[in-house]
Amino acid sequence: MSLSIAAATPDDVPLILGFIRELAAYERLSDQVSATEAMLRATLFGERPAAEVLIARDDGVPAGFALYFLNYSTFLAKPGIYLEDLYVRPESRGRGIGRALLTRIAALAVERGCGRFEWSVLDWNAPAIGFYRSLGAAPLEEWTVFRLSGDALATLASRQTAAN
Amino acid sequence: MSLSIAAATPDDVPLILGFIRELAAYERLSDQVSATEAMLRATLFGERPAAEVLIARDDGVPAGFALYFLNYSTFLAKPGIYLEDLYVRPESRGRGIGRALLTRIAALAVERGCGRFEWSVLDWNAPAIGFYRSLGAAPLEEWTVFRLSGDALATLASRQTAAN
Repeated sequence: MSLSIAAATPDDVPLILGFIRELAAYERLSDQVSATEAMLRATLFGERPAAEVLIARDDGVPAGFALYFLNYSTFLAKPGIYLEDLYVRPESRGRGIGRALLTRIAALAVERGCGRFEWSVLDWNAPAIGFYRSLGAAPLEEWTVFRLSGDALATLASRQTAAN
Repeated sequence: MSLSIAAATPDDVPLILGFIRELAAYERLSDQVSATEAMLRATLFGERPAAEVLIARDDGVPAGFALYFLNYSTFLAKPGIYLEDLYVRPESRGRGIGRALLTRIAALAVERGCGRFEWSVLDWNAPAIGFYRSLGAAPLEEWTVFRLSGDALATLASRQTAAN
């Protein structure tokens, strides 16, 4: 195989949406996907891109992708990289493509002076967890993410007054 | 009391560092703080600010702060707001300052077309968890964050080759 990893271009938007849908199906979360090509184009390739995307190709055939953005650590006073999605197509697994994508992003993190490289994993995804541990990544077991969205977010937002 | 919430300015850097250190002490993580005023100034108030900061004042006296940045959801193809730090000084608690900061950020999230507003909490921080649930926030209980930093990050980064 000949693996190449390159930054995505606007032409890759249909491919990216396909990867997102495949990943959601694997995570059993397909009902949560409302992304469209137009929205991806606007948010990823507009004036202020909200995230960066790498596409991995195996002998020129799209094999997987990674989408990441910069986060920030107040304790370090440094940015970090947060990997939102990492996905390799089933037929391309076991060839080191996931590792190559993570390696590329780790190198980007170091280049940009980031203190950390982070991502989230579903607790039942034992193969992924074993792989991440083998790279030296450590789980933040004491922490839980809370999310406000939909009606609850709108309700809290609507309580804003001149005083706050 | 007269509560005001305003975007931080470079003059607030010493105050922000003080808040970060107080928060770390509360979280029993003081040994992890390496932030300095110079680093905060460079990363928060330079050409490309890595995060935004709100300062809450009670009758003009600094009472707490919130630091957040934009993240991204591929499922929604929308940015979101991630709240990295929320802190209210002990002597100012119980007056709705934390709620006012969260309300302000929720309103910003809606204004900016964000699909989500997220943050993390230490699992032993029961008062905070109860408060967040009362706002309609839901824990992402199935997910765990993995972190690569320090030597493990440098080691993975060093494995980058022309091929990946």
